[in-house]
Amino acid sequence: MKAYADRSREELLEELREVEGRYEALKGRGLSLNMARGKPGTEQLDLNRPMMDLLRGDSDYLCDGMDVRNYGNLEGLPSCRRLFGELLGVAPENVFVGGNSSLQLMYDTVAKAYTHGLLHSEKPWAKLDCVRWLCPAPGYDRHFNISASFGMEMITVPMTPEGPDMDRVEELIRDPAVKGMWCVPKYSNPDGIVYSNETVRRIAAMKPAAPDFLLMWDNAYCVHEFEGEYLPFPDILGECEKAGSADMVFEFASTSKITFPGAGVSAFACSENNMAYMKKLLNAQIISYDKVNQLRHVRYLKDKEGVLALMKRHAEILRPKFHCVLDTLDREIAPLGIASWQRPVGGYFVSVNTLPGLAKRTLELCREAGVTMTGAGATFPYGKDPKDSNIRIAPSYPTVGELQQAMDIFCICLKLAALEQCK
Amino acid sequence: MKAYADRSREELLEELREVEGRYEALKGRGLSLNMARGKPGTEQLDLNRPMMDLLRGDSDYLCDGMDVRNYGNLEGLPSCRRLFGELLGVAPENVFVGGNSSLQLMYDTVAKAYTHGLLHSEKPWAKLDCVRWLCPAPGYDRHFNISASFGMEMITVPMTPEGPDMDRVEELIRDPAVKGMWCVPKYSNPDGIVYSNETVRRIAAMKPAAPDFLLMWDNAYCVHEFEGEYLPFPDILGECEKAGSADMVFEFASTSKITFPGAGVSAFACSENNMAYMKKLLNAQIISYDKVNQLRHVRYLKDKEGVLALMKRHAEILRPKFHCVLDTLDREIAPLGIASWQRPVGGYFVSVNTLPGLAKRTLELCREAGVTMTGAGATFPYGKDPKDSNIRIAPSYPTVGELQQAMDIFCICLKLAALEQCK
Repeated sequence: MKAYADRSREELLEELREVEGRYEALKGRGLSLNMARGKPGTEQLDLNRPMMDLLRGDSDYLCDGMDVRNYGNLEGLPSCRRLFGELLGVAPENVFVGGNSSLQLMYDTVAKAYTHGLLHSEKPWAKLDCVRWLCPAPGYDRHFNISASFGMEMITVPMTPEGPDMDRVEELIRDPAVKGMWCVPKYSNPDGIVYSNETVRRIAAMKPAAPDFLLMWDNAYCVHEFEGEYLPFPDILGECEKAGSADMVFEFASTSKITFPGAGVSAFACSENNMAYMKKLLNAQIISYDKVNQLRHVRYLKDKEGVLALMKRHAEILRPKFHCVLDTLDREIAPLGIASWQRPVGGYFVSVNTLPGLAKRTLELCREAGVTMTGAGATFPYGKDPKDSNIRIAPSYPTVGELQQAMDIFCICLKLAALEQCK
Repeated sequence: MKAYADRSREELLEELREVEGRYEALKGRGLSLNMARGKPGTEQLDLNRPMMDLLRGDSDYLCDGMDVRNYGNLEGLPSCRRLFGELLGVAPENVFVGGNSSLQLMYDTVAKAYTHGLLHSEKPWAKLDCVRWLCPAPGYDRHFNISASFGMEMITVPMTPEGPDMDRVEELIRDPAVKGMWCVPKYSNPDGIVYSNETVRRIAAMKPAAPDFLLMWDNAYCVHEFEGEYLPFPDILGECEKAGSADMVFEFASTSKITFPGAGVSAFACSENNMAYMKKLLNAQIISYDKVNQLRHVRYLKDKEGVLALMKRHAEILRPKFHCVLDTLDREIAPLGIASWQRPVGGYFVSVNTLPGLAKRTLELCREAGVTMTGAGATFPYGKDPKDSNIRIAPSYPTVGELQQAMDIFCICLKLAALEQCK
C-alpha cells in the first residue's frame, strides 16, 4: 500500500471510488455503534458482583467505631481514607472521601474558589474580572466544560510526550490572572501519556504569580494499566511540599473505573491546611457523603494489592479492545500516512491525530454510518481543535465484535475524508 | 406545685437548695447523653435491613432500559423520579434525584445562584453587593449555616402557629435585595409546626421585587408523622404555578429519615424551565448521582404506600421517645410556668421556649452534667436567639431509658437556671 501523498491523481480517484462504494454499503447496514465515552463495558461491571454481597447483617455496618448508616464524619470513613491514601501514596489525613463522582469534587473545588476563595485567595474569584486557566490539550472535555461553565479564559498548552509543555507553562504562570491548570498525570485523557518525573518535578516547582494558583491533579487512571505491570507514580502532594508549595495542589481519584462508573467512591487529597479550610466550607454543604458505599468498597477492595489484582482483571477485558483499535489502525491507516496515534498502555482512550482538517469530516461520516464518537474538537478548550485533527477513540464499551465493525467504519471514513480533501 | 412566679423568696430559695442538691448528685454520675441532633436511632436503621439484600444478580441492575451501575442519566433513574414525584405530589419530569444529601442539593442550588445566577437573575449573586434572605425562626441551623457561608444578610421572620408571619414576609419581599427564604412546611424544624393551607397559598402568591427570588421549600418531614395518620400537604409547585410564579420555588426531600441518614437518596422538584436550566448547569458538575442506590430505594420502598407503611414502623419507635419528652416536661416543668413547648405529631424535635434569658444557662448546666443538646441560639440566624429562650430537643437517637435520664437532667437544669435568675 502506498501513502496517499505518494499516489497519482488517478490512483487517488480510483481509491476514492472504491472507498465510497464501501462506505455506502456500510451506511446501508443501519448500524448503531458507540465509541464516544470512556464507559466501562458490562463485562467489567459484572466483575464487581461480589461487592454487593458484603453488607448484610446489621453489625456489618459498624466500622471505625461508627454506624456508617447514620449521619456524621464529613471527611469520610477512616478506612476508606486509608485505602485512597495507600493508592495515591499519601497519608489518610490528607484524604477526603466523597460521593460517586470525582468530577463533582473537582467542580466543587473550583466553585468554592469562586464563591469563597481558596486558602490563599485575596478574594473570591467571582469578584475578579478575569480568571485565566491552563488547559493542556488535547485534554479531557469535562475539565474544559467546568472551566467554560465558570466563564474562565482557557489557555491551550500543547501536550508533549512527557506531559504539558513546561516551558510554555512556566511562562504563562507569570500572569497573576492565571489561576490554575488541569492535569491528568497518568494515562492522560485522551493521549494516554504518562507525565515524566521531570515534568512532575517542574510542575511541583512552579512559582505562579497567583498566590492561590490551583493545580487540579486528576489522577483518574492512577492504577489503570491494561498492558504490562502497574506503573508507580510520584506523589504530587509530597513533590509540592518539597518545593515549598504544599497548598497549591488538589489531587483527585475515584473507583469509577475500578468498581462502578455510576456508583463508585471518589476522593480528593490535599495539604493539611487545605483540608482544614475545605472542611470548614464543606461543613455547610453536606453532613457526610455515603459512608455505606465507602465501607462496601473498603470491604471489597481491601487495600492497594486488592485494587491492583482487580485491575488485572479489567485489563484482560480491555486489552483485546485496545488491540483491536490499534491493530486496525496499523493495518488500514498507518501505510496511508494520513494519521498518527499514541500507543497507550493504560487509561481509556486512543488519541488519533489526522492530517489537518480531517477530524470533523471523519466524525460526520462516522455519524452518518451509525458510529458515534466523541465530538470533534471536544478535546480542546472551547471545543475548537485549531488543526481539526484530534479524534478520541473510546474502545471500552462495545464488545470486540462491535468494536471491529466500528473501527472498520472509522477507517473507511477517515480514508474518505482524506481522499475528499486531496481530490 | 406552685408556679415559680407565685412563690415567695423563701420558697424559691428552698427549691433552689433542693434542685442544686439533685443537680450535683446527677453531675457526679458522669453521664454522657446526647439530644443534640435529629439523628435516627439504631433501631430505626435496622428496620431497613431488607433494602440491602435486593440487588444481587447482574440483571438486577437493569432498570428503565439502562444498567444503573454505569454512567449516565443526570436527572436520576426514571423510577426514582416517579417515586419522589408520588411522595411530593408532582410529575416525575419535575423531579431531579440526587445523592445522599438534600442539604447538598440545597447548598448547590444557592451556590449556582451565586456563581451562575438563577433562571431569572440579571447577574450571578456573587456580583451583587448585598443579598438578603428571609429566615423564619426558630428554624433549621443548617439552613442558616448555608446563608451564613455565602455571606447573606439574614432577616429573622417570626414563626406563628400557622407558619412564617406572612404579613412580615409580604412587607420584606418588597426589597429587591431580598432574594429568598427558607421554609420547612411540614413539621418545621424545630417547632413541628405544619404551615396552614392559607399560609402556603400566601407564600405561593408572593410577588417579590427580586425577579429571581428563591423559595427554598425543604419538605424534609413530608411523610414523617409519629402520631396519628399521614397528613396530606399542598403541592407547592402547583400552588406557585397557579399563582403565576412556577419558577420561584425549589422543593427538597430525602429518604435520610426514611431509610438511612447517611446513605439515603435526595431529590429536588422544580418547574420545567428551572429543570432545563439546572440540568444545563449540573451537566458540568456531575455525570449522574448514584443510580444503584436510587434503584435500591425504588425496589425497597416501591411507592408512596410502601413509604407510608415504613413510616408507621418508624413512628412506633419514635412515639415513646416523644412521649417521654413531653410527659416529663408536662410533669416537671408545666406547673412551674417557666417554659412552654409545642406538641408536634411529626418531625424530629420538641421546641421548648423558656422564660427569657434561660436557654444558654440551661444548656450550660446540661453540658456540665453530661447531656449534649443543640447549642443555644442555633435555631436563629447568626446563632443569636434575641430572647435567649429557644431550646431544641432531639429525642430520636437515645433509647427511651437514656432519654428519661437526659430529660430528668434537662428539667433540673432548666429549674436551676430559672431559680438562679429569680434569686
